[in-house]
Amino acid sequence: MSKHLEVDAEIEFEEEFVVGLKKVFEEMIVFNQILGLKITSLKPRQVTARIDMKRDLIGHFSYNRIHGGVISAGLDAMGGLAVMAAIGARHMDETPVQRLHRFGKLGTIDLRIDYLRPGIGEYFELRAEVMRLGSRVASTRMEFLGADGKLLSTGAGAYIVS
Amino acid sequence: MSKHLEVDAEIEFEEEFVVGLKKVFEEMIVFNQILGLKITSLKPRQVTARIDMKRDLIGHFSYNRIHGGVISAGLDAMGGLAVMAAIGARHMDETPVQRLHRFGKLGTIDLRIDYLRPGIGEYFELRAEVMRLGSRVASTRMEFLGADGKLLSTGAGAYIVS
Amino acid sequence: MSKHLEVDAEIEFEEEFVVGLKKVFEEMIVFNQILGLKITSLKPRQVTARIDMKRDLIGHFSYNRIHGGVISAGLDAMGGLAVMAAIGARHMDETPVQRLHRFGKLGTIDLRIDYLRPGIGEYFELRAEVMRLGSRVASTRMEFLGADGKLLSTGAGAYIVS
Amino acid sequence: MSKHLEVDAEIEFEEEFVVGLKKVFEEMIVFNQILGLKITSLKPRQVTARIDMKRDLIGHFSYNRIHGGVISAGLDAMGGLAVMAAIGARHMDETPVQRLHRFGKLGTIDLRIDYLRPGIGEYFELRAEVMRLGSRVASTRMEFLGADGKLLSTGAGAYIVS
Repeated sequence: MSKHLEVDAEIEFEEEFVVGLKKVFEEMIVFNQILGLKITSLKPRQVTARIDMKRDLIGHFSYNRIHGGVISAGLDAMGGLAVMAAIGARHMDETPVQRLHRFGKLGTIDLRIDYLRPGIGEYFELRAEVMRLGSRVASTRMEFLGADGKLLSTGAGAYIVS
Repeated sequence: MSKHLEVDAEIEFEEEFVVGLKKVFEEMIVFNQILGLKITSLKPRQVTARIDMKRDLIGHFSYNRIHGGVISAGLDAMGGLAVMAAIGARHMDETPVQRLHRFGKLGTIDLRIDYLRPGIGEYFELRAEVMRLGSRVASTRMEFLGADGKLLSTGAGAYIVS
Repeated sequence: MSKHLEVDAEIEFEEEFVVGLKKVFEEMIVFNQILGLKITSLKPRQVTARIDMKRDLIGHFSYNRIHGGVISAGLDAMGGLAVMAAIGARHMDETPVQRLHRFGKLGTIDLRIDYLRPGIGEYFELRAEVMRLGSRVASTRMEFLGADGKLLSTGAGAYIVS
Repeated sequence: MSKHLEVDAEIEFEEEFVVGLKKVFEEMIVFNQILGLKITSLKPRQVTARIDMKRDLIGHFSYNRIHGGVISAGLDAMGGLAVMAAIGARHMDETPVQRLHRFGKLGTIDLRIDYLRPGIGEYFELRAEVMRLGSRVASTRMEFLGADGKLLSTGAGAYIVS
C-alpha cells in the first residue's frame, strides 16, 4: 500500500457509494462481467478483486492457462478502480451519486503489464493502488496473484482523471 | 511494415499452415473467440485481424465504447501471432504441423498499450509486426484502428520464443 | 510520419523559434548537452536529432557499446521535443517567445523503451513524432537508429502538455 | 523486497565480488560514472544506489530539476545490477571472477519509467529488486526516491540473462 499518496487511508465509503461503484464496475462495464471481475475490497488507497477461472478465459488449451489478455484487461480495469476510489476519498463532500459520475470521465492513457509466471489456478486475486493522484493524471501499480498468493503478473498504468 | 526484420517477406504460407494457425488462434485460444478476433491476413512480416463490435465488449456504457481490455488483449494476441508468422517463415523446412507446435512455446514477457482515441465503431482492425526476432526474445509493435482507418491505440510487446 | 495527427505538416517555423528552441534543448537542458544531443530537423509532425559516440556514453566497455540510458534519455528528450514542435505549430498566432515559454510546462508522464539491437557506431540518429496531441496529454513514438539507418531501439511516451 | 523470488536472501557476497562489481558498475560502465551512480547496498534480493545532484544532470533550468533521462538511465542500470546480484547469489559455487563475467552477457530488453513527482533535491536514492529470475529472462521493479524518502519515479524492466 502506497505511503506516498496524499489521500486519507482512514476514510470509509458509504454503502450507497460502494453498491453504486460495484454496479457500474461489475455490470455496466459489460466486458468486466465477461471477465467475471468481482470487487472484494474498496479502500481509498487500495482496491482488490477476484476472477474465477472458467473455460472462456483460456489462453493456452494444453495447460488450462488463463489468457494474458484477461490479465491485462483485468489490471487495466483495476487501475481505473483504484483511481476512482482515491478520487472518491478526495471528494467526500460530494454525494455518492456525484462521485460516481466522475467515473465516466476516467480514461486509461497507457498500460504496462509484466507477465512473470503462468496463470494457472481456480481463481486469481487482483490488486491496485494509486502511486500519485494529480489534478489531471493519476499513476497506478497493479498486481495479479494466484490462489496461493504467488505474484503472477505486475502492471503499471497512467489515467486521465478529469 | 518493418524493413529491419531479417525474415523473407516473399514467403507464402501453405494452406495447411494457415488453416491450422487460424484454428489454434481463433478457436483453441478460447478467450480470442470471446473477443471475436478473426485473422484477415497472415504474412511473414505483418499480420492483421478484425474484431466486430458487440455488447459483450463494452467498456463505457454511455458511449458504446469498446473496453480498453479488449484492445490490450487483442493486441497482445496479435503480437504473439506476428511472432508466430515470423518464426513460421524462418522454418519453412519444417512441416506445417511442426511449425504449429512452436506456438505452444510462445509466451508474452511484457506489453505496453497507448490509448490514443476512444474506440467507437462497428468493427476494428488490428495489425502487428515483428521489430526483431532473436533466438530467445522477439519484439513487436501493434496497432488498433477504427473502421475509418484512424489509429486508436498502439502497442509494443516482448515475447519469449523458445 | 503520423498521418493521424491533427497538426498542419506544412507549417515552417520562424528562425527565431528554431534558434530559441535549439538553445533551450541543446544548452539550457544541461544533461542534453552531456549526451551531445543536437537537433537536425524540426517539423510540426516530426523532429530528428543526432548523437555522436564518445567515451562518456559507453555502457559496455568490451564492445564500445552505447549505454541503454543514453538511448532512454535521448528518446525521452526527443518525445518532449516532438510535442513542443506540435504545440508550436498549433499556436503560430503567438510570438516565438510565447511559444517557447510553453516548453517549461511540459513534463514526461511515462516512457517505454524497447532495445532491439546493440548500439554500436560512430553516431546515431534519433526521431520522434506525436501520435496524439490532446489538450492535457500527448502521446509520442520514438526511434533510435544506427549510422547505417538500422533501427536499434524504439520508444513510446506520454507527456503532460499544459 | 520481493518475497516471491526464488533466491536465498541470506547469502552475503564476498568482498572480492562486491569490490569487483562496484568497479565494473561505477567505473567501467563509463556513463554510470557520468551519472555519478554509487552503489550503497548489494543484497541478493535488493540493491540500492545513490546519485548526488550536480549541474550536469539538470533537466529543467528554472527549477534545478533532475533530467528524466538521468532517472531512466539510472533505473535501467539498477535493474541490471539487481539481476546481476540475483544471478550472483544463484552461482555461489563459482568464483567471484566467474560470476562477474556473467555481467557482460546481461542486456536490457525493455524498460518502463513512470515519473510521479519532480526530482528536486541534493541527492537521490535508487532501489531495484528482481521480481522473477528465469533461465533466459529476468523481470525487475525499480524506485527513484528523494532525499526525504519520497517516491519520485518507479520503473519496470525486462533483461536477457544468458
